[in-house]
Amino acid sequence: MNILFLGDIVGEPGRRCAREILDELLVELRPDLVIANAENATRGKGLSRKSAEELYDAGIEILTMGNHTWDQRQIFEFIDDDRRIVRPLNYPERTPGRGFTICRVQQVDVLIVNVMGRTFLSQLNCPFDALDEVLAAHPQIRHVIVDVHAETTSEKLAIGWAFAGRVSAVIGTHTHVPTADARVLPGGTAYITDVGMVGPRDGILGMRRDPVIERMRTHLPSRFEVADGPRQFCAVSIELGDDGRARSITPIYRELA
Amino acid sequence: MNILFLGDIVGEPGRRCAREILDELLVELRPDLVIANAENATRGKGLSRKSAEELYDAGIEILTMGNHTWDQRQIFEFIDDDRRIVRPLNYPERTPGRGFTICRVQQVDVLIVNVMGRTFLSQLNCPFDALDEVLAAHPQIRHVIVDVHAETTSEKLAIGWAFAGRVSAVIGTHTHVPTADARVLPGGTAYITDVGMVGPRDGILGMRRDPVIERMRTHLPSRFEVADGPRQFCAVSIELGDDGRARSITPIYRELA
Amino acid sequence: MNILFLGDIVGEPGRRCAREILDELLVELRPDLVIANAENATRGKGLSRKSAEELYDAGIEILTMGNHTWDQRQIFEFIDDDRRIVRPLNYPERTPGRGFTICRVQQVDVLIVNVMGRTFLSQLNCPFDALDEVLAAHPQIRHVIVDVHAETTSEKLAIGWAFAGRVSAVIGTHTHVPTADARVLPGGTAYITDVGMVGPRDGILGMRRDPVIERMRTHLPSRFEVADGPRQFCAVSIELGDDGRARSITPIYRELA
Amino acid sequence: MNILFLGDIVGEPGRRCAREILDELLVELRPDLVIANAENATRGKGLSRKSAEELYDAGIEILTMGNHTWDQRQIFEFIDDDRRIVRPLNYPERTPGRGFTICRVQQVDVLIVNVMGRTFLSQLNCPFDALDEVLAAHPQIRHVIVDVHAETTSEKLAIGWAFAGRVSAVIGTHTHVPTADARVLPGGTAYITDVGMVGPRDGILGMRRDPVIERMRTHLPSRFEVADGPRQFCAVSIELGDDGRARSITPIYRELA
Ligand SMILES: [Fe+2]
Ligand SMILES: [Fe+2]
Ligand SMILES: [Fe+2]
Ligand SMILES: [Fe+2]
Ligand SMILES: [Fe+2]
Ligand SMILES: [Fe+2]
Ligand SMILES: [Fe+2]
Ligand SMILES: [Fe+2]
Repeated sequence: MNILFLGDIVGEPGRRCAREILDELLVELRPDLVIANAENATRGKGLSRKSAEELYDAGIEILTMGNHTWDQRQIFEFIDDDRRIVRPLNYPERTPGRGFTICRVQQVDVLIVNVMGRTFLSQLNCPFDALDEVLAAHPQIRHVIVDVHAETTSEKLAIGWAFAGRVSAVIGTHTHVPTADARVLPGGTAYITDVGMVGPRDGILGMRRDPVIERMRTHLPSRFEVADGPRQFCAVSIELGDDGRARSITPIYRELA
Repeated sequence: MNILFLGDIVGEPGRRCAREILDELLVELRPDLVIANAENATRGKGLSRKSAEELYDAGIEILTMGNHTWDQRQIFEFIDDDRRIVRPLNYPERTPGRGFTICRVQQVDVLIVNVMGRTFLSQLNCPFDALDEVLAAHPQIRHVIVDVHAETTSEKLAIGWAFAGRVSAVIGTHTHVPTADARVLPGGTAYITDVGMVGPRDGILGMRRDPVIERMRTHLPSRFEVADGPRQFCAVSIELGDDGRARSITPIYRELA
Repeated sequence: MNILFLGDIVGEPGRRCAREILDELLVELRPDLVIANAENATRGKGLSRKSAEELYDAGIEILTMGNHTWDQRQIFEFIDDDRRIVRPLNYPERTPGRGFTICRVQQVDVLIVNVMGRTFLSQLNCPFDALDEVLAAHPQIRHVIVDVHAETTSEKLAIGWAFAGRVSAVIGTHTHVPTADARVLPGGTAYITDVGMVGPRDGILGMRRDPVIERMRTHLPSRFEVADGPRQFCAVSIELGDDGRARSITPIYRELA
Repeated sequence: MNILFLGDIVGEPGRRCAREILDELLVELRPDLVIANAENATRGKGLSRKSAEELYDAGIEILTMGNHTWDQRQIFEFIDDDRRIVRPLNYPERTPGRGFTICRVQQVDVLIVNVMGRTFLSQLNCPFDALDEVLAAHPQIRHVIVDVHAETTSEKLAIGWAFAGRVSAVIGTHTHVPTADARVLPGGTAYITDVGMVGPRDGILGMRRDPVIERMRTHLPSRFEVADGPRQFCAVSIELGDDGRARSITPIYRELA
């Protein structure tokens, strides 16, 4: 089974870039499942219904989220009903939406989970325990893809190694910069610290540079907006065996003018 | 001018790996200057005199530091006298050691600066202002290498872009995971968000995995130790023109059993 | 000289409470100078021109600020021209407004400074160094009131003790809860870790309770609003000698239905 | 029922001060139960067996803890067996020790719970949920004392108000500075944001001042030690009715030369 996982899609430039690149890539790679992190899809913060539809139209089947999950209030209207959206699993019980979803791919159940790290990011329940639980509840599923949305390399690596051999892939998101450490960990777990971003290449995390730099230097308020200009597409292609073990993980990097 | 920059060297495995790989690489690349981040060189925390000597013997000429600068108390005995060691520039005035150093390479003065980010890392003075000042004080120097030691991708990118066209290179360190975003920014500034690490490949940031995972899961004390096993070598090779502008930046990744 | 210092005034209930209590208190205590922290004066966040005028009308002469200084954008229109407003001194150079002000009280110059702590709060320059500098620049002034706006008790106590004997008073703000540790430190420096708040007594830091509790429990967005109901008035009365040394510091706590 | 609750006891000076003041106070107040926070009892960090014995000898019956629970490794030898020690409840499952204890006071069961806040302090499970659970598991107990060990006033107030009417008392610890906001919340819950400290009065949180100030100013390592000199004793006396509701909470502050 071939799975394509796209990093955080940022704003309209990111959505458009995803669609344009996927037009080619779906033909080239013929992935069996396409997943993308969509926490920044709408104006860089959150996910509107319209943005979600655009991403589905582009060929993405599952959308994972992160610390920006609730930034577009509209999401409360559809997250409960849309089984294709996966928000962090380790939010408190009774949080709207779902922390994992199961989809049928080529006669096989694939579990897609999203967990959020806590270091410098959120005050949530333990992501390790949350993953343990969801795995224990689905012992028959062998194809498990984890989006670990976290700030630090140490927390992502710790989750990767702690679940090596128990899940098919641990894919990092959130920092918007792709790392060069994609590998298959012992036991058959595809791992990368961060997939990177689909969005404006010459911004700062996809946002216009000047307001970001100004705020850092002056500590005065500034309005952040999605940048324009050339766009980058960051994804990984993961190949899983019938036993759910990863055989390979391959970073994909493309640019659009 | 060709500059080789090695990421955070972790412990004895990292030091030995640096020496072994440099043995080949110095012949292959014939760099004019070799710089390395050495904040983790001694048992993963700080820099002893003996470790520094080992790194100099291996062919490294300048050692930059970071948040672990003072972890080996011995450093106070030699940091003031050793002009090859550069600790973060934005420490308070009167901090031992120096925040930049100038070395003569092929009849050209090269300024090497180390700044530390503040987000989630340190309560120091503004790294942007500190860099502005050091550049203003050395208007005649056109070859400037900045080691930006920071936690977040946003702060590193902000410093990279803010100084694009004003320095030769902005090289990120600290996260120990190499990023796949090396490029020459407009104006001729070589940039990478993180060079990565020289040290044990299968640890977490170079440290043994189990104590790190256990502490994250249990919040109980655990003793961190440098890992063993295969090692990785992460560096970048930067080519500068006579005008100080970067022509290229090339990541180098090697492994040793 | 008698100085009255009011803690963070929160929203319209706080402004009204300040006015009503001051009506009595100005008669009772006949203070020579009235200072208040106004960072939350307008809807709990920032300071509008109208709120500032209200506070001046109530008898407050100097307004100090904090991390909410810029929350009302309107402040950029008047902060440069209004010498009665003091924002944190350790903001970067060229920040609008002023970090200290001098006012003439009973033929004596009184210096009022506002500094912001860094622990868990802001990435500013060193508050100790900033204070050192402002004191060095005004060696002739012996009446110095410092509003230290900080999160942790340790940082406030450290500043209090570091400047004991060098300033007339170090008065903590920001946590909105009055501490019971008012005392005159050796050398004649009036100190309190936090003055407390002027605002709704039964909210959380002056804001309606339910949205605060809900956000903490659910991590979902919620709209914070200034609470209503009974109000509390927290201030300290400080008595200074002609030499600028504090003779006493007395907490004042009143309630209004 | 009369309960005496002492704030964080710091080091040998704090332990001695507790004993000396309790000698008088036990006679004066005749409390039915004496509780103290002991996370700093041994050299300012953690709790050794010997320190615990000293505190029991002084008349303290229950010891609560906090972020320094594990600082003395010896505690692992006795925390499981000593039912008088209560470490934060919201540590992960399988953490040594217990997060609450029940003791029989005048034919009545009293539940003592310790929870830790998360803001700026720890990455634990939700303290609200943990409290909900422990209350649900003991519906028959009406006398419940909660030590909320947290950094921010907002988190302590939120827990206080969220459990007002459901527990007998919510008593804050950790900041080592007593607050002046003791009151009985609606529903009969005694509340104070922080009890304060039992320990050296003229240190910073009970530690020698100079190393603390120096580290804050220089960011160089410094060794923290418990201070000497005059000591302060901070406690609250809480009076509960037979229905478990608080009738009063009275701060107690004493000093020893
Ligand atoms: Fe994110
Ligand atoms: Fe993101
Ligand atoms: Fe570092
Ligand atoms: Fe490092
Ligand atoms: Fe504030
Ligand atoms: Fe405030
Ligand atoms: Fe604590
Ligand atoms: Fe404590």
